[in-house]
Amino acid sequence: MKTSNLLIATTRETPADAVVISHQLMLRAGLIRSLAGGLYNWLPLGVRVLRKVEQIVREEMNRSGAQEVLMPVVQPLELWQESGRLQDYGPELLRFEDRHQRGFALGPTHEEIITDLVRNEIRSYKQLPINFYQIQTKFRDEIRPRFGVMRSREFIMKDAYSFHLDRDSLQQTYDEMYDAYNRIFSRIGLDFRPVQADTGSIGGDGSHEFHVLADSGEDDIAFSTESDFAANVELAEALAPRGERPAATAELTKVDTPKAFSIEEVSNCLQVKAKTIAKTLLVKGATEDAPIVALVIRGDHTLNEIKAEKLDLVAEPFELASDEEIKATAGCGAGSIGPVGLNIPVIVDRTAANMADFVCGANIEQVHYTGANWDRDAKATLIADIRNVVKGDPSPCGKGKIEIRRGIEVGHIFQLGNKYSKALNANVQNENSRSQVLEMGCYGIGVTRVVAAAIEQNHDDKGIIWPEAIAPFSVCIVPMQMHKSPRVKEAAEALYNELTTAGIEVLFDDRQERPGVMFNDMELMGIPHRIVIGERGLDKGEFEYKHRRDEKPQDIAQEGFIDWLKAKMA
Amino acid sequence: MKTSNLLIATTRETPADAVVISHQLMLRAGLIRSLAGGLYNWLPLGVRVLRKVEQIVREEMNRSGAQEVLMPVVQPLELWQESGRLQDYGPELLRFEDRHQRGFALGPTHEEIITDLVRNEIRSYKQLPINFYQIQTKFRDEIRPRFGVMRSREFIMKDAYSFHLDRDSLQQTYDEMYDAYNRIFSRIGLDFRPVQADTGSIGGDGSHEFHVLADSGEDDIAFSTESDFAANVELAEALAPRGERPAATAELTKVDTPKAFSIEEVSNCLQVKAKTIAKTLLVKGATEDAPIVALVIRGDHTLNEIKAEKLDLVAEPFELASDEEIKATAGCGAGSIGPVGLNIPVIVDRTAANMADFVCGANIEQVHYTGANWDRDAKATLIADIRNVVKGDPSPCGKGKIEIRRGIEVGHIFQLGNKYSKALNANVQNENSRSQVLEMGCYGIGVTRVVAAAIEQNHDDKGIIWPEAIAPFSVCIVPMQMHKSPRVKEAAEALYNELTTAGIEVLFDDRQERPGVMFNDMELMGIPHRIVIGERGLDKGEFEYKHRRDEKPQDIAQEGFIDWLKAKMA
Repeated sequence: MKTSNLLIATTRETPADAVVISHQLMLRAGLIRSLAGGLYNWLPLGVRVLRKVEQIVREEMNRSGAQEVLMPVVQPLELWQESGRLQDYGPELLRFEDRHQRGFALGPTHEEIITDLVRNEIRSYKQLPINFYQIQTKFRDEIRPRFGVMRSREFIMKDAYSFHLDRDSLQQTYDEMYDAYNRIFSRIGLDFRPVQADTGSIGGDGSHEFHVLADSGEDDIAFSTESDFAANVELAEALAPRGERPAATAELTKVDTPKAFSIEEVSNCLQVKAKTIAKTLLVKGATEDAPIVALVIRGDHTLNEIKAEKLDLVAEPFELASDEEIKATAGCGAGSIGPVGLNIPVIVDRTAANMADFVCGANIEQVHYTGANWDRDAKATLIADIRNVVKGDPSPCGKGKIEIRRGIEVGHIFQLGNKYSKALNANVQNENSRSQVLEMGCYGIGVTRVVAAAIEQNHDDKGIIWPEAIAPFSVCIVPMQMHKSPRVKEAAEALYNELTTAGIEVLFDDRQERPGVMFNDMELMGIPHRIVIGERGLDKGEFEYKHRRDEKPQDIAQEGFIDWLKAKMA
Repeated sequence: MKTSNLLIATTRETPADAVVISHQLMLRAGLIRSLAGGLYNWLPLGVRVLRKVEQIVREEMNRSGAQEVLMPVVQPLELWQESGRLQDYGPELLRFEDRHQRGFALGPTHEEIITDLVRNEIRSYKQLPINFYQIQTKFRDEIRPRFGVMRSREFIMKDAYSFHLDRDSLQQTYDEMYDAYNRIFSRIGLDFRPVQADTGSIGGDGSHEFHVLADSGEDDIAFSTESDFAANVELAEALAPRGERPAATAELTKVDTPKAFSIEEVSNCLQVKAKTIAKTLLVKGATEDAPIVALVIRGDHTLNEIKAEKLDLVAEPFELASDEEIKATAGCGAGSIGPVGLNIPVIVDRTAANMADFVCGANIEQVHYTGANWDRDAKATLIADIRNVVKGDPSPCGKGKIEIRRGIEVGHIFQLGNKYSKALNANVQNENSRSQVLEMGCYGIGVTRVVAAAIEQNHDDKGIIWPEAIAPFSVCIVPMQMHKSPRVKEAAEALYNELTTAGIEVLFDDRQERPGVMFNDMELMGIPHRIVIGERGLDKGEFEYKHRRDEKPQDIAQEGFIDWLKAKMA
């Protein structure tokens, strides 16, 4: 395509309201324009990228045996009533009435619709398992839409829903989706991790998120340096330290720690490292016998509330004890608590339980103990994993150590179980002609979000650097002073035609712009391969080539250039 | 694909609420399912057809130089306010408020959005002309959605909008779109006509509708037997008859016509043909001087109200005179009016003006004249084209005669002029650096509607007959008793693999169903080429082949079969 036939909508200024880099670059490169809060027009350059992502997703979903369907954007509220989500779902579900005063919503997700379809169409176990997907426009009325298409109100999802007679079958399709998602994000060319995830409010067991790794990600991902293991930091298990706890060598000694309450203050005051201090927190308990319990972690660690609240002794949802409760229980403020002499259950983190000769609060205001030791000075009611993993921890998979990177969630696969099929009475006849509730899985990819995530991961100060598979064009041809040099024009047109005939997508810059403007635009738009054609090069029988990631251009002989380029692109 | 991997959702019964054949067959063949009034789920078989239509549309739009964009379904009402359509558009525009009480609508069309985009992005005449299109979900809150996806509430449109510095440029893109639409519907394989159309409420000049010819169509299309001319019956010009009006030969004679009011009754009463009777209607006039005017057409013709109301003397909108007005003006009831002695303007249709010795009302209850003649007995104030064309009329293009067929509108191209660009201040700088309002065209195709129209045109009592280009599968393989015959299974699988490798889309019926069930399903689903493989055929080295339109199957040698089939498909 020639730039004269394409809306080039590049801008130099960084839009004031665009905070994240992908939002800035999508506006600056002319991929999108804002229509209203959280609503975007996709410009021609953006649509080219979007369609490529869609096509890869579609091909891999088809390859997995999933069947493409298309459900409406507008959904009747009756079905949301029936599933019970009408109450649960907040104002993000945009509801309205049609001209006959019937209630509808803009679909943020389609569990109800597909389950309704399946209960009407699938009658026999012989039709199972079955997996339906669609690539479709969705709407979520975010209270504060932001980050461009990363958290917009209207967006495109690939959502899939599978139905099964039993859990084994669900697990099998789930595994196939896991594989398909790996193929999809690999083909797109992203550095990503499938991450073990919590099943959250949607319910059911078994869930992975697919995260594109990028410094700007909202989530912390823990993964192994030596295996495929990856999990949300909140969910990654912190193993117990290897080896026995060292023997006690020091005496339990009371020391004054004036104005030292935080770990940092105590560490400075006593001139000891944070990892030698045990941090004690009082939280609400789950039982009447123990309305307050103590949690002890190592001073350099952070408490993991999700892990803590899963313990039988700890209240769910997790809640810290109030100042009054702390005073009444420990006899001091929050900054001086310690496990020695505490008359409540003491839950000790696995790593903290391996400390010896440690520092801890003395349950006297501004006083700590040094030389404290478990068993001898304080009893652990329970030893459990209640902290967040940190870099360097042994990976829970048994191989390698933990690394932590930030990630952007672009996909999510879920074993829903029978949550929706039960609520909506989606049954089939099993082999014994008995009615059986279906098992269900669901599998999403944020198609528009993938575009933004790809940019978050692949850019520099000049603009976007598209992965080859989703670049709007693979190659750009930038002719120098074409309008003054018939020779340059001829060579550029000839190369353009040859590359196009070879099935390569080329953007030919035929604008009468200065070279600097053309270079800047092509770099901003992130075209992977740039070919500059000028008089000087032609004199030597050469084109100038530069990959978007290269520091400097190189001169390549015109003869055999296309084969050279194809090899480069492969 | 094998049927075991495809949702086959065929049904035998004709759904009670489906009136038109395409709706019935789309339900019965398992292409769609109703979700709520005017909302449909597209099942896998339907999506395959839909995507093929989309792809042909996309390819031809790209070939025409149009650029694909994607605008939101949800549109801010501010822009509708600005264009002035917020008032004009009825309750078909579904409006609602978001969680912040801002007004939005589900987009039934995108003139406002694209014009807003263009006024922000297009600054110079150098960027013109430009043509943007999208293939996108739209919503129109029809008061009575019906005919399945033919008139649903949510539907998929290809809508395009072009912008220009002047009318000449608009005309050029309009002509290119005209050509692109012809290519699109030809490639899809439909019998269609581009039809001159009224520009209606959307305004502007120059408009063609593209109609798929089918007996069930809602519109009457007049077209020439010998040229490309086609127009909505309402708009086709009825030429004046050739030759002079015959001379008067009869006396003006009053005859009693008891109880004869309609043309049919008068014709029976006097034993004359309808074409010898002049029918006179009184309608509201446009001026104070002539609040009632008479319209005269030949008895076998019908009045064209659109043509009539365009005349200066006739009120717009068109309205018949009341019984009281008729009595006061003509002195009789509606069934006895005639032009003789009428003291108001008399507008005579071109063909009626060529009558001699005709019958007409005598302005006396139940009395007519015979032997009436223009000039001698009655004066025509104006001779004009005020009737609908009929079959056999000379075509207004000058070639051939008029034929009339029914059509389904699937596309529409419009020269909008500056209606939206003016309202929304969409200007560019012209060559003289002066600000100039843009000219605009718009071009729609009802993508989901095309699927239904294709069925209306291509079906028989067994089901759908898909045009090759949009068939969900080109070929189906129906093996006989495959589960009992390893030989049939092997031959069928081998052929399936060969055809699939050759890039042909094959549906392999691997269900354990009786042959009759499989045949019925494949015919209902409309797969163009059917191959039956059985023991008997294999004994003779033959497959059985039947095109969906063939009466009977034929036996074709296995050897060279694929080449034979390819030739057949070409």
